Amino acid sequence: MRWTISADEHRRRQARVREALGRRGLAGLCLFSPTQVFYVTGFAFIQTERPIGLAFPREGRSVLLVPQLEAEHSQLHALVDAIESYPEYPGRTHPMKRFAEICRDLGLGGGRVGVDGDGYGGGYGYRGPALSELLPQATIVPSRDLIEDMIAVKSPEEVGLIRESAKWGNLAHTLLQQYTRPGLTETEVSGRASFDATQAMIRTLGPSYRPLTWLRAGAHAGYRGQIGKDSALPHSLTTNAVFHAGDVLVTGAGAGVGGYGSELERTMIIGTPDDRQRRYFDLMVGAQQAAFDAIRPGAKCSDVDRAVLAFFERHDLMPYWRHHTGHALGMGIHEGPFFDVGDDTVIEPGMVFSVEPGIYVPGYAGFRHSDTVLVTETGMEMLTYYPRLLEDLTIPA
Amino acid sequence: MRWTISADEHRRRQARVREALGRRGLAGLCLFSPTQVFYVTGFAFIQTERPIGLAFPREGRSVLLVPQLEAEHSQLHALVDAIESYPEYPGRTHPMKRFAEICRDLGLGGGRVGVDGDGYGGGYGYRGPALSELLPQATIVPSRDLIEDMIAVKSPEEVGLIRESAKWGNLAHTLLQQYTRPGLTETEVSGRASFDATQAMIRTLGPSYRPLTWLRAGAHAGYRGQIGKDSALPHSLTTNAVFHAGDVLVTGAGAGVGGYGSELERTMIIGTPDDRQRRYFDLMVGAQQAAFDAIRPGAKCSDVDRAVLAFFERHDLMPYWRHHTGHALGMGIHEGPFFDVGDDTVIEPGMVFSVEPGIYVPGYAGFRHSDTVLVTETGMEMLTYYPRLLEDLTIPA
Repeated sequence: MRWTISADEHRRRQARVREALGRRGLAGLCLFSPTQVFYVTGFAFIQTERPIGLAFPREGRSVLLVPQLEAEHSQLHALVDAIESYPEYPGRTHPMKRFAEICRDLGLGGGRVGVDGDGYGGGYGYRGPALSELLPQATIVPSRDLIEDMIAVKSPEEVGLIRESAKWGNLAHTLLQQYTRPGLTETEVSGRASFDATQAMIRTLGPSYRPLTWLRAGAHAGYRGQIGKDSALPHSLTTNAVFHAGDVLVTGAGAGVGGYGSELERTMIIGTPDDRQRRYFDLMVGAQQAAFDAIRPGAKCSDVDRAVLAFFERHDLMPYWRHHTGHALGMGIHEGPFFDVGDDTVIEPGMVFSVEPGIYVPGYAGFRHSDTVLVTETGMEMLTYYPRLLEDLTIPA
Repeated sequence: MRWTISADEHRRRQARVREALGRRGLAGLCLFSPTQVFYVTGFAFIQTERPIGLAFPREGRSVLLVPQLEAEHSQLHALVDAIESYPEYPGRTHPMKRFAEICRDLGLGGGRVGVDGDGYGGGYGYRGPALSELLPQATIVPSRDLIEDMIAVKSPEEVGLIRESAKWGNLAHTLLQQYTRPGLTETEVSGRASFDATQAMIRTLGPSYRPLTWLRAGAHAGYRGQIGKDSALPHSLTTNAVFHAGDVLVTGAGAGVGGYGSELERTMIIGTPDDRQRRYFDLMVGAQQAAFDAIRPGAKCSDVDRAVLAFFERHDLMPYWRHHTGHALGMGIHEGPFFDVGDDTVIEPGMVFSVEPGIYVPGYAGFRHSDTVLVTETGMEMLTYYPRLLEDLTIPA
C-alpha cells in the first residue's frame, strides 16, 4: 500500500489541466501556491521567502523553478519535464526574472497566460515584482479557480487518503476522550493523545507512510482552547486551560496522510450533563442532522446552509449562530466550496465537506460536532465515524 | 510575569504607524495579513476563508472587521477603537464590500491609502475583489513594507519573548539528543522530546502562558527528515526515518511564546565520527563563526553572507553551498531582511537573525547549525546557547 497519490494520477491531473487550458483559451498556466504546485507535480515543500514557480504550457515542456536548496529534493519528487534552479532569494538576480525568462522560452512571453497569482504571494519576508510587469507582452489572466475547481472533486485515490486520515483522527480522539479528566490541562491531554495515536499510526502504516507536510507527522487531537466558557468562542486559541467538572468541551482531531487530512470535532461534557447543556447539545445534533439530510448531488451548497438556518430559526437559535455549516477540505484545512447561503455551487459526487453547524451561547458554552463527509452518487457517506450522542461523549467528573 | 506583548507596547506601535503614515503621505493603512494585524492590534486568530481587515486611518478611529465567529474573541483581545462584524464569507453580501464601506466612513474612500495587499490574500478557498476595485476614488499604495520595517527591529519586550522561546527550545533539544538512539524513529523521538519539554514549559511558565498560535502549545524539537543521506536535503520533509549508527542528523527546535519563536538547529552524529564527517562538521562550524564575526550594527546584511561565501570559496566548498546565511525571525518563522548577497539592508541593534550556513554533500550528508542572535549596540548576542562542538553532539551508537 502506498500512502501518497500515484504518478499515474499526477499524469491524469496534468492532462486535465491541458484540457482546461484549451477550454479557457490559455497558452499556459503559472502556479506559485504550494498547494497548487503540489497538486499538479506531487512535490511537497516548505514554503519560505524563496519563490517556487511552475510554468505549465498547454503544449510543450513543463518547467519547475526552485531555489538551489530544493534542487535535489524536487528532482526526487516533482513530476515535471524539467527542473531549473536559481541560487537564492533575493540573490544577485531576483528569481522572478529567471522565472519570466523560462516563461518566454516556453512561449508564454505573449498571449493569454493563466496564473494562480500575479507573482509569488510569498510572505516570509518576500518582496518582488508582479509577473505582469516582467511579461508585458502577455495577458495575465487570474486563474486560481482552474486548479481549485479540480481540487473540489476528489478522486478515489484522494478519498482513500482522506479515509485513512479519518481512521487515525478517530483513534487520537478516542485517546483524547479517555485521557481527559478534571485537574489536567488541555496541553498535557492533547499532547499525550496525539503522541500515542501517532505512534500507533506510523507503526501500522509502516515505512511507506509520508505525511507530506512540514508539520509533525501523524495524528493529533486537542481542544484549541474551547473549554468551559471559552467553548463559546468558535475559533479560540490554545490557552493551556485546566479541565473542571461541568465543563463543556469542543475538540478537534485529524491526521496527515500523503498531504491530505480530515476533520473530526466533538462536543463533550465533564460530569453528568444538566438540562440546559443537554438541550443545546441535542439541538446541535439536530442541526447537523438537518445538514446531512440536505446533502445530495445536484443540490446547491447554499441549500445545505439554508436547511441549517431554517432549523436555527425554528428553534429560536439565531442569537447563537456564528458561522456557516461547513467547507470543503482535503489538501487544505479549509477549501471551497462552502455550505454557505452565498455559495450556489452545485454539489457533485466526489466532493468532501465538513459538516459543523455550531451553537454558541456567549458567556456560557459552545456546542459543535464536525464530521467529514463524501458526496456519493445518491447522497453522502460519513468518512468520520466517532460517536455523536451525548451518552457516548460524557467524561467522568 | 506576562508572556505576551503589553497593551502599552501595542499603543506605541500604533503611534509609530501614524508617524510612518505621515512620512509617507498616506491617509491610512489597510491590513489583511494575520501577522500584520496581530502586530498592530494584539489579536491572534486562526486564518480561514473569512477575511479579517484592519482599517487604520492616520487620524481618527481604527476599525477591525471580523467575521461573526470572531466577534467575541476579538473583543477580548484586539486593541482597536471599534470592532465590526459581518455574518459570513461568502455570505449574502461579500465581506469586502462591507470593508470598503468602513474605509469610506473613515475617510479612506479617496486619497492615498496604504495596503499590505490589494484585498484579502486569502487562500482557504477565498475569492474576492481587489480593494482598488471597491475604492476606485482612492489611490491604493502597496505598503507591506511599512509594518515589515517596524517588525524587523525588535523591542525589549519582543526580545524577552524570543529569549524565553530559546530557553524551551534548548530543553526540547536536550531531550531530543538524549532520546535519539539507533533503531528508534524520528517521529517517536521528536514526539517524546516535544511532549516532555512542553510539559516542563507550561508548568514553569504557569497559567499566564499563551502560545498565541493555532498550532500546538509549547516547545518542539525534531528532525524533519534530515537523517543519514537525507541530511543533505536542506528542506527535507519528515519521513519517519529510523536512526542508524553512522547517521549524520540535522535537527530543529523552538517554542511558541506570546506569538514569538526562536530557531535552534544542530548537526549531530550517531557513533564515533569518522574523519570525513569531522572535517565537514568543523568546516560548518567555521562558516558559522565567520558569519558571527561579521555581524555588527552598521554593516550590511550582504556583508555577512559575503563573509560566509568567502569562507566557502577558501575551502573549496562551493559545490556544497545551497542557501544564504540566515534570515530575520520573530513572529514569522522567516522574516526579512536576509543575510544574503542581494540584501543590502543595514544591520541595526534590535534585529534578530538566524545564522545557519550549511554544507550539503549530495548522496552523503548535510551539516548545519542554526542559532538565533540579537544585534546589540556593539556586535551580537547569542539567544540560543546549545553546545556547538562535535564532542557535545555525538550520540552513542
